[in-house]
Amino acid sequence: MARLSVFGIDGLPEITPGMDLAEMIHDAAGDQGDALQDGDIVLVTSKIVSKAEDCIVELDDVEPSDFATRWSLKWDKDPRVTEVVLRESKRVIRQIGPVLITETHHGFCCANSGVDQSSSGAHGRILTLPVDPDATCRAQRERFAELGVDVAVIMTDTFGRPWREGQTDIAIGIAGMHPLFSYIGQHDPHGHEFRVQEICTADELAGASELVKGNTSRVPVAVVRGFEWEADDDASMAPVLRDSERDLFR
Amino acid sequence: MARLSVFGIDGLPEITPGMDLAEMIHDAAGDQGDALQDGDIVLVTSKIVSKAEDCIVELDDVEPSDFATRWSLKWDKDPRVTEVVLRESKRVIRQIGPVLITETHHGFCCANSGVDQSSSGAHGRILTLPVDPDATCRAQRERFAELGVDVAVIMTDTFGRPWREGQTDIAIGIAGMHPLFSYIGQHDPHGHEFRVQEICTADELAGASELVKGNTSRVPVAVVRGFEWEADDDASMAPVLRDSERDLFR
Repeated sequence: MARLSVFGIDGLPEITPGMDLAEMIHDAAGDQGDALQDGDIVLVTSKIVSKAEDCIVELDDVEPSDFATRWSLKWDKDPRVTEVVLRESKRVIRQIGPVLITETHHGFCCANSGVDQSSSGAHGRILTLPVDPDATCRAQRERFAELGVDVAVIMTDTFGRPWREGQTDIAIGIAGMHPLFSYIGQHDPHGHEFRVQEICTADELAGASELVKGNTSRVPVAVVRGFEWEADDDASMAPVLRDSERDLFR
Repeated sequence: MARLSVFGIDGLPEITPGMDLAEMIHDAAGDQGDALQDGDIVLVTSKIVSKAEDCIVELDDVEPSDFATRWSLKWDKDPRVTEVVLRESKRVIRQIGPVLITETHHGFCCANSGVDQSSSGAHGRILTLPVDPDATCRAQRERFAELGVDVAVIMTDTFGRPWREGQTDIAIGIAGMHPLFSYIGQHDPHGHEFRVQEICTADELAGASELVKGNTSRVPVAVVRGFEWEADDDASMAPVLRDSERDLFR
């Protein structure tokens, strides 16, 4: 029976553009006595990837559109931030009161296109989501392999959801393992087909990682050890992103 | 820094109405060498609670309404099951094609009011969700205390969600700890208020528990050890259930 351990990786410095996150995570894990092992799943908060990949927008350089300006002034928001949120989106899903829920270029549905004003390191700058989270995870997984460990990599972000209060960490990028576990065609001990068809293990792993990372504690990386996964070098988040046509809430 | 371990509790027998789940879980944990400890969080799959609380419907006893019958025949469904789904709901959120998304009497938004046809132990019977999951969790927490351990209890179920494929386990009942962790009023190291206001730790814990329980493995209970929580004897899932008026997707 599976027995997981979940722990954070501490001791990373403030991240700046161009840093080799995989190597830093590998070394920090070793330094704290938790050297990475084959089979580990490394969960990296998107925020430090945005910093390493220079997904930083200087608000002084942003010229807000008329649309962004009118809505922002009505709701006491910075029109330049709204402009960046709209640029990061391919579609507005809901714009009601001060709430702006968008579908990002990647296909993630979330508030404000995942733009982060809270912790970019300086006022006047905001962080956008990494451009291609799957590609980043694949590159990190390859870098970990060069450093001698065969690990899966998941990039996480903190999203709200319909119907329920409170946010949870979910997966926005993956490499090495498929994000879904399928029960399709399997039967329970009584011969019924499973009501549950697919579990999004990637999101459950992301949520588990948040429990040790937290948002105040500056622990941007966690490891889940002991979860069995099959290697899949073509893995991506694409199968998790529901088609608009199949979606009843877009 | 937090370090969690997550493991399943094996060796429970087939559950029948009236069984004392807390005592059985307590004993099974001891038998497998994982005696429960103060501070553990015990996560119980709703299915075994439904069985223990006799939330079992004999389909032969169900008289479907005209509405349930017409829709079911159109989509090749059992009208008696549809009738039970509607009885378990206070409101239909979406009814499109063969999909029926409802708000249950408890206030959970999910497919088919959480009615489970897959594993009720015999054909011709289905399971409904426990009537008052918070109350069940409170009673179990009290029972665990009588048995000598101070644990939090979370009841879990496997729900789908808008926008993303794959289901995840979430919390439907809780006792001992508040389901949300709030950052409201706190600031990050750069003095910004947190973008994230509240994390639904209960749902993240539920998702983590699914990783060791699985749906085929007949491991209906998991324990998370090492997660710090403050005792809250008034805890319930109520703060997680978003008011309809605040919800943009109902």
